[in-house]
Amino acid sequence: MTSDVLEKILKHTRQTAMLQSTMALLEWDQNTGLPSNAAEYRAEQLTMLAGLLHKRRVDPQLGDWINQLSEQTGNQDPLAPSSVMARCIKREYQRAIKLPQSLVQAISHATSIGQQIWVESKLRDDFSGFLPCLEKIIELKRQEADCLAAPGQSRYDVMLDSYEEGATKERIRRIFDRLRDSLVPLIQEASEKSAKLGPSVVEGRFEIKPQEEFAKWVARQIGFDFDRGRLDQTEHPFCTTLGPHDHRILTRYSKESFSTGFFGVLHEAGHGMYEQGLDPLWYGTPVGSAASLGVHESQSRLWENLVGLSDSFWHWAHPHLLEYFPGSFEGVPLEQLVQDLNRVQPSLIRIEADEVTYNMHILIRFELEEQLMDGQLNARELPNAWKSKYQEYLGVVPTTDQQGVLQDVHWSAGLIGYFPTYTLGNIYAAQLYHAADQQLGGLDRLVRAGEFRPLLEWLQNKVHRHGQSYLPMQLIEQATDQKVDSKYLVEHLKTKC
Amino acid sequence: MTSDVLEKILKHTRQTAMLQSTMALLEWDQNTGLPSNAAEYRAEQLTMLAGLLHKRRVDPQLGDWINQLSEQTGNQDPLAPSSVMARCIKREYQRAIKLPQSLVQAISHATSIGQQIWVESKLRDDFSGFLPCLEKIIELKRQEADCLAAPGQSRYDVMLDSYEEGATKERIRRIFDRLRDSLVPLIQEASEKSAKLGPSVVEGRFEIKPQEEFAKWVARQIGFDFDRGRLDQTEHPFCTTLGPHDHRILTRYSKESFSTGFFGVLHEAGHGMYEQGLDPLWYGTPVGSAASLGVHESQSRLWENLVGLSDSFWHWAHPHLLEYFPGSFEGVPLEQLVQDLNRVQPSLIRIEADEVTYNMHILIRFELEEQLMDGQLNARELPNAWKSKYQEYLGVVPTTDQQGVLQDVHWSAGLIGYFPTYTLGNIYAAQLYHAADQQLGGLDRLVRAGEFRPLLEWLQNKVHRHGQSYLPMQLIEQATDQKVDSKYLVEHLKTKC
Repeated sequence: MTSDVLEKILKHTRQTAMLQSTMALLEWDQNTGLPSNAAEYRAEQLTMLAGLLHKRRVDPQLGDWINQLSEQTGNQDPLAPSSVMARCIKREYQRAIKLPQSLVQAISHATSIGQQIWVESKLRDDFSGFLPCLEKIIELKRQEADCLAAPGQSRYDVMLDSYEEGATKERIRRIFDRLRDSLVPLIQEASEKSAKLGPSVVEGRFEIKPQEEFAKWVARQIGFDFDRGRLDQTEHPFCTTLGPHDHRILTRYSKESFSTGFFGVLHEAGHGMYEQGLDPLWYGTPVGSAASLGVHESQSRLWENLVGLSDSFWHWAHPHLLEYFPGSFEGVPLEQLVQDLNRVQPSLIRIEADEVTYNMHILIRFELEEQLMDGQLNARELPNAWKSKYQEYLGVVPTTDQQGVLQDVHWSAGLIGYFPTYTLGNIYAAQLYHAADQQLGGLDRLVRAGEFRPLLEWLQNKVHRHGQSYLPMQLIEQATDQKVDSKYLVEHLKTKC
Repeated sequence: MTSDVLEKILKHTRQTAMLQSTMALLEWDQNTGLPSNAAEYRAEQLTMLAGLLHKRRVDPQLGDWINQLSEQTGNQDPLAPSSVMARCIKREYQRAIKLPQSLVQAISHATSIGQQIWVESKLRDDFSGFLPCLEKIIELKRQEADCLAAPGQSRYDVMLDSYEEGATKERIRRIFDRLRDSLVPLIQEASEKSAKLGPSVVEGRFEIKPQEEFAKWVARQIGFDFDRGRLDQTEHPFCTTLGPHDHRILTRYSKESFSTGFFGVLHEAGHGMYEQGLDPLWYGTPVGSAASLGVHESQSRLWENLVGLSDSFWHWAHPHLLEYFPGSFEGVPLEQLVQDLNRVQPSLIRIEADEVTYNMHILIRFELEEQLMDGQLNARELPNAWKSKYQEYLGVVPTTDQQGVLQDVHWSAGLIGYFPTYTLGNIYAAQLYHAADQQLGGLDRLVRAGEFRPLLEWLQNKVHRHGQSYLPMQLIEQATDQKVDSKYLVEHLKTKC
């Protein structure tokens, strides 16, 4: 009986996922080379599909099945697929039925157009051109939060919870307060040290082609499976899943900075390997889906920072780097390379920020979007608010909006409440790496030898394969045998100073 | 009242087109770099969308509206959009309701998988690996034809009519008989002439990058709008439309042959410019859709052959060619280039065949697929049947199936009855070019000066903007003030000998 209703839910959910992955292709394509005049029609297509999807998600028949399943799984092992399904799909369904179809479609249309206009506005450094879109998106997201809110729940808490179940602004605030107290002296110390260094060897002039080839080669070495994925170029890096065996990572290369493209690929490959580590048989269902955005980010940051910025990683990668870039890195000793990759300096662009200052960029966004949702701040006030926060927390001020409030894609895509999961991801990543290091008897030795498989298998076993069987923090605690604690991140960052 | 029901039909049809263009993106992506393990899921996605599409196409509500519209437009100008809509949508609807949804979905799944397996089988020259797919596709297409057939109508006529309204095998047979009688002596004469020539300057060693850049530049010069389209690489060249302003052409470059890639692009750009010349306001409706496959092919062949292989074209293009390929074409005089591009020689590969022998390749496929549909020939007998036809009509025999029966994508995609429209297209193209030449006061002078706009505008005006307002042959007759006649093609081909 359980299996009967479970089968029905599974079939329904998998068909929904199939439409969703079709939508994901429309979005991937929008970011890889949609002809310039085709944006409006693409937005209409996405809007139509968003409508079809929403209709499936609020299907009353699905609601009945979910109720039946919940009754049947009440006393069962909470880790059994049917229990996980009952819990997660019920949550999704109860959210979906609170949203009117018209609002879902309006958000889809506004964010599809919004992302196109954001790209152009960023290019022209024209915040005022983007403002009407942004105002509309914020207004729609406020409406969405109002629909979803439990009695007394704030809009921003609604948004946070949708990305990271159980997260609240109070909880995030506490995490940031503690982290900031540790980071401020670290940033001070490390910046002073970096300021004394000469020109960096990872800044200069790098051809795109060897960057792409080297990054692709490294992605393959650490375990990204190109038979089940691909790597392309885009304006704002991301990773997307278009099917159980189709995981696509996208990055942007810079001719001036080696780090931009290379660590962009490591980061997105980390996301991609998480998706590739989910059970394809459960694709499109909670058991085969990532636990949360925070856990997702832990996987990208682990490979980007904990592995990719380590001394041992470059011990292995350095000779290969010289092969791929015979000109650019000739005669650069390993020690200097690692030192320059790890420089700490307050800066303007989040995705190019060093590991130590990075979380301050998140703190700024967290505070601004909280105010945006609650109506304390208007979109038109953002550029100035942005500047004063950067002055306050990082001591640097952008002279253009391109380097300020226009730098991130998120708000144009309606992703409000998303940023804090980046810092959660950093915290989880450090804790996971620490645990793997202990359990595998020293990662340093393995990484130094270019043996990445044990680490990837450990992650697959401890994190990936569980899908949404645990709540995000439970999953990390289960994997590491520790309460979630930012001390592992702080300890790791101290080694950078 | 007319406008009311018309509005309803339009809205319905446009939403159907939106799903269809989503499907077209899934197919485009399948041909540009789908990860190898993702083929099965992509087939499932396409199958699901094919099902959704079919459900919309057989919507009884749509049937009611069509009947209402037909009654209202009975005495109206047949060129009025509502009359065209009534005629074409009724035809589509009446076809669709004859097909069971399960068959539509089975064909979609078999052809999606079929194309993937065809690519692999062709690569490995393994017809037996492809055979089970092909047998299945042929069986499904026979079932489809049986569902659609009017009393007494043969399966192959059903297939032909679906691509070119009004075409029958008797009519096609008459056209081929006449054409063959003219071509046989021409091929003989021209081949003898070509056989005396030395090595060709368009065969040898060509880097891909300048090929791509030159072809793209020329496509832009003749009028393909890259703000509303893009150019990519694929295994089997094609052109697809993903929206009113999103027309994508795909080609394959060869390092050994300049002609493969360059004329591939001209050909697909011709298709693309036709699509770009349709009225975007009527996108997804008969008034904004191409008249037929034959007319479509007339546009590609006109730019590829009538323009692209002419002496006057290369008079203009030659200096640019030398710029893009400073090594490969250095010191090659214009006359020799034109001569080598226009060599006539019976050969094995259709898409690389010269203009004169090309239609014999079509004749072979026409005869084989007619027999396949009627059950006179089994799929497993194809490789041998293929060889004996090539021996009979062209005097050459492939030693591999890669160069024989596996060379074309069509059958793997379920496109049976499609090939004859290529020859119709050649006939239309020559007739259109002849008429444009007369009406514009000499195309030679314009092409020689690189002035392609008058010709493109003439085609837009005479052909593109009419969509499906006329039946295919009517459209050509209307544009050229002549009955459709293969004599213009034969006259044109005589100049090649």
